[in-house]
Amino acid sequence: MAKNLIIGQSGGPTAVINSSLAGAIEYGLQSDAIGNIYGMINGIEGLLEENIISLSAMFRSMPHELNRLKHSPAMFLGSCRYKLSGDREEFNRIFEILEMYEIGYFVYIGGNDSMDTVKKLSDYAKKKNIDVKITGIPKTIDNDLVGIDHSPGFGSAAKYIATCVREVAFDTSIYSIKSVHIIEAMGRDAGWLTASSVLARQDDMPAPHLVYLPEVPFSVENFVEDVKKKLEEYNSVIVVVSEGVKDKDGNYISAAQDSGADKFGHARLSGTGAYLKAVVEKEIGCKVRALEPSVLQRSAGHIVSLCDVNEAFNLGSVAVRAAEEGQTGVFSTLRRTSNKPYCVEYSTEDVAKVANQEKTVPREWINERGNDVTEEMVTYLKPLIRGVAQTPFRGGLPDYIDIRHLDVRNQRYKD
Amino acid sequence: MAKNLIIGQSGGPTAVINSSLAGAIEYGLQSDAIGNIYGMINGIEGLLEENIISLSAMFRSMPHELNRLKHSPAMFLGSCRYKLSGDREEFNRIFEILEMYEIGYFVYIGGNDSMDTVKKLSDYAKKKNIDVKITGIPKTIDNDLVGIDHSPGFGSAAKYIATCVREVAFDTSIYSIKSVHIIEAMGRDAGWLTASSVLARQDDMPAPHLVYLPEVPFSVENFVEDVKKKLEEYNSVIVVVSEGVKDKDGNYISAAQDSGADKFGHARLSGTGAYLKAVVEKEIGCKVRALEPSVLQRSAGHIVSLCDVNEAFNLGSVAVRAAEEGQTGVFSTLRRTSNKPYCVEYSTEDVAKVANQEKTVPREWINERGNDVTEEMVTYLKPLIRGVAQTPFRGGLPDYIDIRHLDVRNQRYKD
Repeated sequence: MAKNLIIGQSGGPTAVINSSLAGAIEYGLQSDAIGNIYGMINGIEGLLEENIISLSAMFRSMPHELNRLKHSPAMFLGSCRYKLSGDREEFNRIFEILEMYEIGYFVYIGGNDSMDTVKKLSDYAKKKNIDVKITGIPKTIDNDLVGIDHSPGFGSAAKYIATCVREVAFDTSIYSIKSVHIIEAMGRDAGWLTASSVLARQDDMPAPHLVYLPEVPFSVENFVEDVKKKLEEYNSVIVVVSEGVKDKDGNYISAAQDSGADKFGHARLSGTGAYLKAVVEKEIGCKVRALEPSVLQRSAGHIVSLCDVNEAFNLGSVAVRAAEEGQTGVFSTLRRTSNKPYCVEYSTEDVAKVANQEKTVPREWINERGNDVTEEMVTYLKPLIRGVAQTPFRGGLPDYIDIRHLDVRNQRYKD
Repeated sequence: MAKNLIIGQSGGPTAVINSSLAGAIEYGLQSDAIGNIYGMINGIEGLLEENIISLSAMFRSMPHELNRLKHSPAMFLGSCRYKLSGDREEFNRIFEILEMYEIGYFVYIGGNDSMDTVKKLSDYAKKKNIDVKITGIPKTIDNDLVGIDHSPGFGSAAKYIATCVREVAFDTSIYSIKSVHIIEAMGRDAGWLTASSVLARQDDMPAPHLVYLPEVPFSVENFVEDVKKKLEEYNSVIVVVSEGVKDKDGNYISAAQDSGADKFGHARLSGTGAYLKAVVEKEIGCKVRALEPSVLQRSAGHIVSLCDVNEAFNLGSVAVRAAEEGQTGVFSTLRRTSNKPYCVEYSTEDVAKVANQEKTVPREWINERGNDVTEEMVTYLKPLIRGVAQTPFRGGLPDYIDIRHLDVRNQRYKD
């Protein structure tokens, strides 16, 4: 007998989380084992408040909207940063609601913290012999998840950062005066996104001239020396720096400017670029600009990687298929089987292997001086930004799907 | 007998200056009256140094590259900010070089200052009976040129800003906590680009919730009141503010930052957005982010307006045709003849009417409170961002043309 599927999204946005949602819904709509497909509004937090909508009702009547969903950034269902307290009452409440909606399959899209939720819920269900299969779909622009070759969301953010570097390089190349541009990329502890800026170096373009990852202790003195040296060779020097670079004692370079910390205890970072701009102004004295693409790098749905969109979509369907086949406590993953041509193989992996861990850039993929990456890194990154996705446009602007326009938010209904 | 054409680019970059260059070259290649087509490297400054290349040689042998040029941002020929001194020796030197290269047609692409150059050179040529026809092609993202319905370059920057607002709005919509995002748009004295952010309001999207143009004196007190009021209605409030807003005494709001800044940038803020971020933090205390798209808004060739690209291309050919027909001291312009459907008519206009003037936003196109624009503004703006241009991609990134890859920079040659 068919059971129902419920899907939620959690954590920070990427440009392709909705591609995964679309893949999960499409698989669910075609499966005989799956009845209704529900969505939690604002993840597990919304589930606890029974803020639930019917995705099958919505997309069965509007099948063309699934394609629009596949190409819309951020999170159609909204997000949360809810940490399961682990107490029995909370678990009881969750599984009570799941039972009420006759849920047999629970799929959660998110990063490290969300995979922890998948682990805790599946452990509890197993222990209590509750027949709900719980699987995860990975996402993060930081590419710091273990157990997967690369994270969905990363390729599109990488494409955005590399495009920015190209466009800043073109912009600055028109004058023959000396200038420095410092672009600050996201990634607190993992430098993957910062590293991806080197993809801008197509043909003979030397930008970015300097790249600083958080995996290597950052020295302001070396930085000034590096910039001075590049300025001898080039009029315009473009630097990409991770928001999370730290000095040899582990203090964030930007720490002096922002001492707040977010709910999960992560230091809140902004201003590494602004700080280094002031350093260059003082120590070198040429024209300097600091650019911080900020949230645009994770939400720029208008320039996503086709490779990323398709993989995110496939990982969505793989997670639902896994649950349907009886797997639980796993997340969908991909393994690179070949680089030329680029090929991947989809499977699942135990969430216990990914939750609360972090994959940083291996030291040997960064050059000795710590101001650039190696060829291995470039080979790894190159395929991930490939292809131009067909973002739908209307009236000259990206025509993203918005749950508020579908007039269903805060309406709870069954088919 | 055919005479030669020389083209230069000057001032700050836009995403479609090269579209105008492509239009000028294409027209020139097909004209019987025009022999060789030369390009000045770095505008009039390069001309004075005889830093000149042959565009006809280049593009006759690579005709497909003209399409790539049409879709590449910044300036293929490089730029300058050279102001003619007006002394006789300088004029003599310029016309001596033009004579050496048998130039009959001189076309200059640029903004206000460049049109001043066109005016001075054409006045001099007329006075001295020198048979060189000198015309201009307008450009600026600020849309502050007079004598034209709207400036080429503006529509693409407007599309970029509106897209940013949409993507930030999607990014912030996923949480149910209170937040304010402040996006700082370019345009020191004219608020057209800031105003164009309202195009993001497709369907029911309320973002941007508040829009502040430099044409209206800015009050920090009113701003705080406006934001507070919007926060009562919306979780996430998005503000777009011109970099050039000034208080009632004409002082830039961003100037307030300079007081109290310590040596190494610790408390130093870099702009209007950053300053207002600090104001919201202090006066309201919710989550705030300041975003400054900076040079990306003028150089984002990957998301240009098709309308803008085509108009820039056409204005390029119109300026060459005008010179060929014997006009001088004019620039190519367009007049909107209809809004539904959107139609324009191309012609020329006396440069004397545009040089050293500035078209700001009429007060009646801004609402009374000074925190939004009127319907007239929206009607004016809407057609300008329409259409998606076919930016060529390679390896997952925009495949812009770069004169350095064509291996001709610093090579001076004739066909």
